[in-house]
Amino acid sequence: MDHSSEREPPKALLFDVFGTCVDWRSSLVREGEALARRRGLTGVDWAALADAWRGRYQPQLATVRSGARPWVNLDVLHAESLEGVLRSAGLELGDDDRGVLTGAWHRLDPWPDTVEGLTRLRRRFIIAPNSNGHIALIVNMARRAGLPWDAVLGAELAGTYKPEPEVYLRSARALGLTPPQVMMVAAHNGDLAAAARYGLQTAFVARPTEYGPGQTSDLAPEFAVDIAARDLVDLACLLGT
Amino acid sequence: MDHSSEREPPKALLFDVFGTCVDWRSSLVREGEALARRRGLTGVDWAALADAWRGRYQPQLATVRSGARPWVNLDVLHAESLEGVLRSAGLELGDDDRGVLTGAWHRLDPWPDTVEGLTRLRRRFIIAPNSNGHIALIVNMARRAGLPWDAVLGAELAGTYKPEPEVYLRSARALGLTPPQVMMVAAHNGDLAAAARYGLQTAFVARPTEYGPGQTSDLAPEFAVDIAARDLVDLACLLGT
Repeated sequence: MDHSSEREPPKALLFDVFGTCVDWRSSLVREGEALARRRGLTGVDWAALADAWRGRYQPQLATVRSGARPWVNLDVLHAESLEGVLRSAGLELGDDDRGVLTGAWHRLDPWPDTVEGLTRLRRRFIIAPNSNGHIALIVNMARRAGLPWDAVLGAELAGTYKPEPEVYLRSARALGLTPPQVMMVAAHNGDLAAAARYGLQTAFVARPTEYGPGQTSDLAPEFAVDIAARDLVDLACLLGT
Repeated sequence: MDHSSEREPPKALLFDVFGTCVDWRSSLVREGEALARRRGLTGVDWAALADAWRGRYQPQLATVRSGARPWVNLDVLHAESLEGVLRSAGLELGDDDRGVLTGAWHRLDPWPDTVEGLTRLRRRFIIAPNSNGHIALIVNMARRAGLPWDAVLGAELAGTYKPEPEVYLRSARALGLTPPQVMMVAAHNGDLAAAARYGLQTAFVARPTEYGPGQTSDLAPEFAVDIAARDLVDLACLLGT
């Protein structure tokens, strides 16, 4: 599945972040369990809550992508969807605690290979997130996790959400590059398919437990990506850095 | 001139770049002299050429700020103004050489204290450029010079040029902060006066040879800035990091 020899090597790598660089599910469970300990809450299935919360993500983004509402950032969307998730779970939390949970998306942990992989890739390539996360969230996450981005690109710069073409194209343009000079790196076929459609190169990185132990989707690339890697250190090796 | 004790410490520092973090004049002379050696050009006063080039900068920005033309980046503006500068200097250069000189703005050298100062400041504060330089230029410069920005904010994100209010306000908003939570760091009174007007804290950093040995302006702060520092290492000391 490595077609990179057929094309010029990219000058920049753009990364999906949630799932590809950081383990949102385990991190939300960690934050939920810490909150439960502080508040003496018992019997909450935080993994189920994280899954339900993330499940509301795409329908929310769709309302922005369609133009039905103006661009709002993920803090706004996460806070809104948390209301319904808590209601469904029968869990009552005060404003402060809901703020802590929404803020948890700024404190997601990297996968074990992420910092080493990004650090190695950065030696040869410009690296930047091309995430639906807004700039403040990505900056806070990067400072905590040690993600060495050269710039923070993505949804906020474009004013819409992936997989809208403008998110990919605006990020390439911001780096002064054409789409084929840029490689999108993601653990999600939908993200990569969009990137390929708009002319970017593509690298699939496997994250087979992103959605927990029973994950059935996005276990392998579903189209002819330029590179398929086991993780970000493997990607660095495949890209010769 | 240190009023920082009167206000909450900032959470983020925004930096002017040209002149404050990097020495554009000496760097352009270095690039011009290297070009002259390659082409066997003699008798060019590269410092005068750099000064003349920079002299056309504010009038150009004014055409974008006024809305007379849509936002274009500094590569476009620098390439345009170089034409007139070369003509005035009686210097004929081909497209390649003019491209090298325009690209030189991506390869400006930091002042001797810049990397250490930014690295120390970043331990405690979010640091980001709030420059009129576009994202690609600032990224290329940062990778070459080792400037450890957390994000690249400034004119391109705002879609206009300093000292328009939106450049300062959009950068603060991108970090999820209010203007008073942000400190603008610059070697130019005009930049800091605008930042103060829109509610940011201000730090003056002296760059007394930015415009060459005979510099007469911006030698000291001209209003009550929050902090006045000798250089960026001194600023780190004054901010306790």
